Amino acid sequence: MRKQIEILDTTLRDGAQARNITLSVDDKLNIAASLDMLGISTIEFGNPSTGEREQEGFRRVRRHHFQKSRIAAFGATRRKDTPVEEDAGVRALDAVGTDTVVIFGKSWDLHVDHVLGTTREENLRMIADTVAYFAARGRRVIYDAEHYFDGRRSDRDYALSTIRAAYEAGAQCITLCDTNGGTMPEEIGEATREAAALFPVQIGIHCHDDCGLAVAGTQAAVLAGATQVQGTFLGFGERCGNTKLTTLIPNLQLKLGYSCIPDENMPMLTTVARQIAEIANISIPSHSPYIGSNAFTHKAGMHADGVLKLSRSFEHIAPEEVGNARRILTSEMSGRSALLHKIQQIAPELTRESPETLRIIERLREAEQAGYSYDAAEASFELMIRRETGKLPKFFDLVFYKTTGEQPYTGSLSSSAIVKVRVGEREAINAAEGGGPVDALEIALRKTLYEFYPRLAESKMCDLKVRVLNPEAAMGAKVRVLMTYSDGDATWSTVGVSPDILEACWLALSEAAEYKLVLDAKL
Amino acid sequence: MRKQIEILDTTLRDGAQARNITLSVDDKLNIAASLDMLGISTIEFGNPSTGEREQEGFRRVRRHHFQKSRIAAFGATRRKDTPVEEDAGVRALDAVGTDTVVIFGKSWDLHVDHVLGTTREENLRMIADTVAYFAARGRRVIYDAEHYFDGRRSDRDYALSTIRAAYEAGAQCITLCDTNGGTMPEEIGEATREAAALFPVQIGIHCHDDCGLAVAGTQAAVLAGATQVQGTFLGFGERCGNTKLTTLIPNLQLKLGYSCIPDENMPMLTTVARQIAEIANISIPSHSPYIGSNAFTHKAGMHADGVLKLSRSFEHIAPEEVGNARRILTSEMSGRSALLHKIQQIAPELTRESPETLRIIERLREAEQAGYSYDAAEASFELMIRRETGKLPKFFDLVFYKTTGEQPYTGSLSSSAIVKVRVGEREAINAAEGGGPVDALEIALRKTLYEFYPRLAESKMCDLKVRVLNPEAAMGAKVRVLMTYSDGDATWSTVGVSPDILEACWLALSEAAEYKLVLDAKL
Repeated sequence: MRKQIEILDTTLRDGAQARNITLSVDDKLNIAASLDMLGISTIEFGNPSTGEREQEGFRRVRRHHFQKSRIAAFGATRRKDTPVEEDAGVRALDAVGTDTVVIFGKSWDLHVDHVLGTTREENLRMIADTVAYFAARGRRVIYDAEHYFDGRRSDRDYALSTIRAAYEAGAQCITLCDTNGGTMPEEIGEATREAAALFPVQIGIHCHDDCGLAVAGTQAAVLAGATQVQGTFLGFGERCGNTKLTTLIPNLQLKLGYSCIPDENMPMLTTVARQIAEIANISIPSHSPYIGSNAFTHKAGMHADGVLKLSRSFEHIAPEEVGNARRILTSEMSGRSALLHKIQQIAPELTRESPETLRIIERLREAEQAGYSYDAAEASFELMIRRETGKLPKFFDLVFYKTTGEQPYTGSLSSSAIVKVRVGEREAINAAEGGGPVDALEIALRKTLYEFYPRLAESKMCDLKVRVLNPEAAMGAKVRVLMTYSDGDATWSTVGVSPDILEACWLALSEAAEYKLVLDAKL
Repeated sequence: MRKQIEILDTTLRDGAQARNITLSVDDKLNIAASLDMLGISTIEFGNPSTGEREQEGFRRVRRHHFQKSRIAAFGATRRKDTPVEEDAGVRALDAVGTDTVVIFGKSWDLHVDHVLGTTREENLRMIADTVAYFAARGRRVIYDAEHYFDGRRSDRDYALSTIRAAYEAGAQCITLCDTNGGTMPEEIGEATREAAALFPVQIGIHCHDDCGLAVAGTQAAVLAGATQVQGTFLGFGERCGNTKLTTLIPNLQLKLGYSCIPDENMPMLTTVARQIAEIANISIPSHSPYIGSNAFTHKAGMHADGVLKLSRSFEHIAPEEVGNARRILTSEMSGRSALLHKIQQIAPELTRESPETLRIIERLREAEQAGYSYDAAEASFELMIRRETGKLPKFFDLVFYKTTGEQPYTGSLSSSAIVKVRVGEREAINAAEGGGPVDALEIALRKTLYEFYPRLAESKMCDLKVRVLNPEAAMGAKVRVLMTYSDGDATWSTVGVSPDILEACWLALSEAAEYKLVLDAKL
């Protein structure tokens, strides 16, 4: 029986502190659903005392049924010289009604003296009162000892007395936090071993990456007895970020023999990481351990030959174990069978060697080099396969579009568009106004096509994402646009890439209309 | 006397294996000069057997005078069944004439059997012959034991016999390489301790980051007795990259008491990192330990208040120690005192209670509700404070802009824009074409303003981010655009929000121009 490690994901609380990360309530619910799918034990969903938006999130997440994950709420100890029942933060935390609460408090004398500005005794009472309050209400209390390692370096006895206060008040888990991220792994291991020996409760660890050692420090704590690990899924967080769970989980589970998530879910790691990155609108760095697009990519001739001869000779694990794939840059051989499988869903008569198959692979290579990504745009990929295999009727052709925009605007809206299309032998032209040029273009296309394809009215856009692909190229940068449409029955996504943002949008929205026509024609 | 650690930087050899990295000979010479300025002990400049371009690099670097750095050349052991004097790789390595040579050879029986395809005895002779060849010619030989840790796990005695062969043949340093990046720090420490006890020569360590532990593994080796460390300055390299020296060097020197570079050079770390990133044409991730733009950035209210009260309470080192700087961000979540601190940088006469302060806070709240975020757009925030406090001259006003776009396009570019502005009593109008409408708008604005403000030509955009704020609103969704500009000295970021993507871009790019005028006016 392998030792179980509780993973507490704080993407939605500490991760949301990262610069450039802004998550709506919908984003948070979607990320929580992805984490649950992977089998993450505990999701720290937010800090209710920061405002109405966080509280709305808790109201909505309560209605969601999770398979595996427990939802936790985070908050501070009561304020100094305030009865715990009257503390606004404590009441906000209580009100969201989660089974698990995470209470953070001060362990560093320096902070007690200069940041809190209270006595060391009052700080101990603040910890004890707050933990006892929630323990008495039947909650599972995790006590986050902020700055524990700095505190221990400064006054070891006082640091220990803060976690003793939490323990004696009924905390079921004591998590040692390296809040400033400056502690070396050896010291983290030693302090964790000490705490685990003194307090017969679960010990947790929460690290930051300011020395590039968050994962290493966390592992040192686990080897010293910690059984709860806090981190953010993709590692984002304040400053240099938190412990990156996409690295830590496979290290603990595949290398060190612990169990963090169900074994059968490990091959979902890369997919879940990409989903969460998409929702948070960030890119996964290509060199990310395990999940990055380059994690199993081989370039140097010598190495690539070695990999072809014997893959484990140049890979520390098989990429499939975490749902990633090997890429050999010179031969572009990656994923042929997966690709063939997709092609055969639309054109079952094709084989690995068919000229159409080879042409599709070539097209795919070109498109990916141009910045296309079909991972989240299967409708565009299907249209490409249909086009290459003669399975796509000509529903319409663009003759031209023209857009205009202005500020300040003189009419009722800032933008207008003219679209002219050819359908069979006929041509049609129409125009529309919109709140922006993309809006105007989409309405104009639909107005023009309605007379030929009235069922287009059933579909509407439900999601839109814009990513600048090579931001360092600034004004010359390419833009990738992903659009999702739905007609009530089906939902499909398309992609467009261009240095002209309007053209990128046009490519995605015109393919979305084309795909609706494919669906209606029951091809 | 602190223990000296030799830093061997392999940015120009192993780092050049990274996908997306292409370095010209000039680039390599410039990077070497930067590393020398910082005081890096050894620079592995390339592998002469890979071709004429590498050899030209060595011819040119030989003419360069370095203050601190030694130049090393890298190459393989002789090929199997080939006399060492006749081996083309050995001769190429000899010909470049560096004092230091790095010879890599096989330590993993699996590789000897299946990749080299020779006997284990011949592999030992290949190592010994090659090391002895260069030692006899008075070179300092560093022996890189490739896949050492995998080899040791597979057949410990054979792995040890490979490094014994190098030692007995005269290698002055034996470097243990975790070529696949899959070894945990504890095992690296143990194997290093063993090698250091057996062989009375310098021991080195070379790690890869496939488990996110390259820095941790390297530190474990140093604590176990290694005194040479190999890595790439910014961490780039094959797959997940190599040991990141910008993290490792301050960890060893500021945290663990070793000496890697002269103490007085440590504050150049961030500058040298930016220089090298510039030459290699990559961006330094903002969350990079020590050198990233967010490494000492504080956002959450509670924390930011703490930092202002007592900086070391929320920072593991002072940012100045590595030449970086503290930043306090602005958002609804950040505390009043952080906000006041920012306001007072521009308007020192304001207090917490001034009507202007309250108006700015109200403005900030409204803007954030409308979708603005100033966390990554301090220039826009500063402009807002200046506007509210009467500290922003009217540099220009937009009279109107008009944009047009079309597909397929009839001229040379798809988009054009007209911009009319008022500057004082005068009005000016101009037009431009662009690869997209944003491009056209930006060029038109600049053309229109140049006659009034010629120094605008110094600034250019270097980053662009687009985020759809409420994608579920589809076509009605608001778009937030972030732009970063630089004029060589300063770098600044602005933000615009609108349902009309062109207007959002306009707001950001016109504020970027306005901020450049603020900088030039030295307000």
